[in-house]
Amino acid sequence: MVLNVNEFRYINPAQRILLGPGPSEVPPRVLQSMAAPCVGHLDPYFLATMDETQHLLRFLFQTENALTISVPGTGTAGMEACLVNMLEPGDEAVICVHGAFGARMCEMVERIGGKLIRVDQQWGKSTDPEAVRKAVKGRGPKLLAVVHGETSTGVLQPLQDLSAIAREAGALFMVDMVTSLGGMDIALDREGIDVAYSGTQKCISCPPGLAPISFNDKAMKVLRGRKTPVLSWYLDMSLVENYWGPARKYHHTAPINMVYALRESLRIIADEGLEPRFARHKLNHRALVAGVEAMGLKMLVPEAERLPTLNAITIPEGVDDLKVRKALLEEFGIEIGGGLGALAGKIWRVGLMGHSSTKRNVFIFLAAMQSILKAEGAKIKNGAIEAADAVYKKVS
Amino acid sequence: MVLNVNEFRYINPAQRILLGPGPSEVPPRVLQSMAAPCVGHLDPYFLATMDETQHLLRFLFQTENALTISVPGTGTAGMEACLVNMLEPGDEAVICVHGAFGARMCEMVERIGGKLIRVDQQWGKSTDPEAVRKAVKGRGPKLLAVVHGETSTGVLQPLQDLSAIAREAGALFMVDMVTSLGGMDIALDREGIDVAYSGTQKCISCPPGLAPISFNDKAMKVLRGRKTPVLSWYLDMSLVENYWGPARKYHHTAPINMVYALRESLRIIADEGLEPRFARHKLNHRALVAGVEAMGLKMLVPEAERLPTLNAITIPEGVDDLKVRKALLEEFGIEIGGGLGALAGKIWRVGLMGHSSTKRNVFIFLAAMQSILKAEGAKIKNGAIEAADAVYKKVS
Repeated sequence: MVLNVNEFRYINPAQRILLGPGPSEVPPRVLQSMAAPCVGHLDPYFLATMDETQHLLRFLFQTENALTISVPGTGTAGMEACLVNMLEPGDEAVICVHGAFGARMCEMVERIGGKLIRVDQQWGKSTDPEAVRKAVKGRGPKLLAVVHGETSTGVLQPLQDLSAIAREAGALFMVDMVTSLGGMDIALDREGIDVAYSGTQKCISCPPGLAPISFNDKAMKVLRGRKTPVLSWYLDMSLVENYWGPARKYHHTAPINMVYALRESLRIIADEGLEPRFARHKLNHRALVAGVEAMGLKMLVPEAERLPTLNAITIPEGVDDLKVRKALLEEFGIEIGGGLGALAGKIWRVGLMGHSSTKRNVFIFLAAMQSILKAEGAKIKNGAIEAADAVYKKVS
Repeated sequence: MVLNVNEFRYINPAQRILLGPGPSEVPPRVLQSMAAPCVGHLDPYFLATMDETQHLLRFLFQTENALTISVPGTGTAGMEACLVNMLEPGDEAVICVHGAFGARMCEMVERIGGKLIRVDQQWGKSTDPEAVRKAVKGRGPKLLAVVHGETSTGVLQPLQDLSAIAREAGALFMVDMVTSLGGMDIALDREGIDVAYSGTQKCISCPPGLAPISFNDKAMKVLRGRKTPVLSWYLDMSLVENYWGPARKYHHTAPINMVYALRESLRIIADEGLEPRFARHKLNHRALVAGVEAMGLKMLVPEAERLPTLNAITIPEGVDDLKVRKALLEEFGIEIGGGLGALAGKIWRVGLMGHSSTKRNVFIFLAAMQSILKAEGAKIKNGAIEAADAVYKKVS
C-alpha cells in the first residue's frame, strides 16, 4: 500500500474563539504543560503529579472524598464510570431527563440491566422535584441522577430538593457536573452529592480527554458491597482506586501528558480562586444576555433557570442556522454550537466557559452576531454592545 | 478549604530515556503538534484531521477496513472495546493466555457474561496451536483472541496457525497488537485478523491515552447482527463509527489534542516507511540481546519466540531488582520495567519501541547496566558494547 505522505501536512489549526458547548479555549500554559517530556507512568515524578492532581481536583469539587481522580476517557466515560460502578442488574435508578444528557444516562442504565425510572421534563426547563417525589414514592431506588447544567438546553438544575429526595429514599445522589464544574459554585460535600463526574474541556479549559470524578464514602460502600463485578473492567473504580492510591497497582497506563495538562488547568483555577472565578462566569453571562436581548433576540430558558456557562439563544424566525454559524466561523473564527435533538435548528448554544468566559469574547460575539444577522436580513436592534457594557460598568 | 497553590509548581519532568514497557519516548514533533491550539471537535479543520488520522491508521494496520479509528481511552479501553462489541452474554470465547494481558481478556469476557474457554500456556512461552485446536474441538466459539506481543513476558506469538484455527471454527480472530503495531510487520488483511487493537504509547511513540482499533467486514457484520445492545455505551462502535464516519453524529467530544499527537506520530512512521522501521526494531533488538548475553545475562524467552520490541532479561541470582532499577533511573535517567505477576522480581523488561529503539539507547543501556551490576557485585563479563557494536557493523 503506497501512501502519499505529502498529502498530510503539519498540524496547523486556526486560533479559534471557542464559544461552543465545549471545548473551551485552552490557555497557553496548559498547552505548554501538555508538551512537557513524557515520563513513565510509575516514574516518581509522575506519581507525585497524580497526587497533586487529586489534591487540586478535591479543591475544585469542594470535597474531602478520597476517590477523586480523572478517568482516562471523555465526560461520557465519566458518566458511564459512575453508573456502571453504582448499579448492578436489577437495581432501580431514577433518572431526571430534561435534555440530551439525561437521556444518555437512561440508555446506559438500560444497558447495565438496571430498572429505569425515568422522570421527563420538557427540554428548556429544569426537572420538577414534585414529579421526582411522585416517581420515587413506594419504590426503593438505589440511585437518583440528574444533570446539573444541561449542555443541550442551557438549563441550570437546582439541586437542594433533589438531594433531599434522594436522601429520604436512601438513594445515592449522582450529579452530572460536566458544564458546571469550575464555572459555578457547587460543593459536593455541602450539596449532599454522593457521586459526581465532569469533563476537562468545559469550565476547566483543558483539552478534552479526561473525566474528573468523585465518589464519597457512601458510594464507596456501595461499590465494595456489590454482589456482581462491575461490567466494565476498564472503568472499574475498585481497580482504578488502587492505581491512583498508595498501592500503585497497575491497571492501565495513565494518559500522562493529558494529566500534565489537567494539573496545570487546575493550578490556573487555584491561582484565580474559586469565588472570583464563579463571579466572572456570572458577570460575563449577564452581559451576554443583556446584549442578546438588546438586539431583540430571546433566550430559550427563563431567567431563574439559566446556566451561566452555556447560553441557549432562540434562532429568530426565517434565519438560517447553519449559514449564521458558518459566517461566524469563517469571518470571525468564532465557534458556537447548534441545537441537539428536538432543538436542532431552533437554538444556538453559546458557551462562556473557563478561559473563554471573558469581556473580550462577549463583545466580539455580540458585534459579530449583530453584523451577520443584519446581513441575513433579520430585524435586529442596535445597542447590543452598549447594553453589555452597561452591565460591566454597573459592577465596577 | 484553603489550598496552598504555591506547593504545586510548573510541570517540569526530567528528560528520561524510556526503555520500559511503555510509554516510549515521544518525538518533539509529536509534543509540538499536541500543543497546537484546540479547535472544536466539529470544526472543519478537525474533521479533516480525523479523516487523515483514519487514513494513516489504515496504512499502519496494513488494512482497508473502514472502521479503523482511535478509541478515546488507553490500550485497555481498546481491548474492552473489541470484546464488548463482539461478544454477547452466552457467547463462547477462546482466550489464549501466556501472560498478563491474555489473563486480562479473560476477566473481561467473564464480566460481559461470555462463556470463557481458556487456553493457558506457561508465561515466557507462546501459545501452542495444538492446545487451542483441542480446546476448540466440538465447540462453536464466536471469537478466538490472542496477544501478539506479550508485554508482560516479551514473547512473540506466531499468528498463522491460530488464524487458520479461528477460520476453520467460524470464529472471529482477534489480536492484541499493543506492543507490536508500528514495530513489527503485521498486516491485518494478510494475516486474516478480524479485530485488532493497540495503544499509542508503545511502538507508535505518541503519549498514552488513545487506542487504535480496526474491525473488518466480518466483525462489522457481527456487530450489526447483535441481539442485545453493546454493554458499554461509551465504547459502542455502532455509535462511534457514525461519529468518525460521514454522518458525524455526536457521540463524545474527541480528545482533540491527543488526536493531533497521534496523527503526527503516524506521519513520522509514514515518513520513515514501514519496512525500514521494522528492520530498525529488529536490528536494535539483536544488538541489545548480543550485549546482554555478552555480559553473561540470560534472556527469558528462547530466541525463536522473542519479541523485538520488548526484551525480558532474567535477573541474576542475588541481584536486587528494585535497587538496580532505581540506580538506572537516578544515575542515568533510564527507565526499564520490572516483572508482572509470577515474574515480579525475576525479570527486567526492556522496551525498544518506536522512537526509543535506537543504537544510542542500546549502547547507553548496556553501559549503564554493566556499571550498576558490577557495583552490585554481580558476576558480569566485559564486552557488552563490543558485542552489540559487532551486530551493527555486520549489517552496515
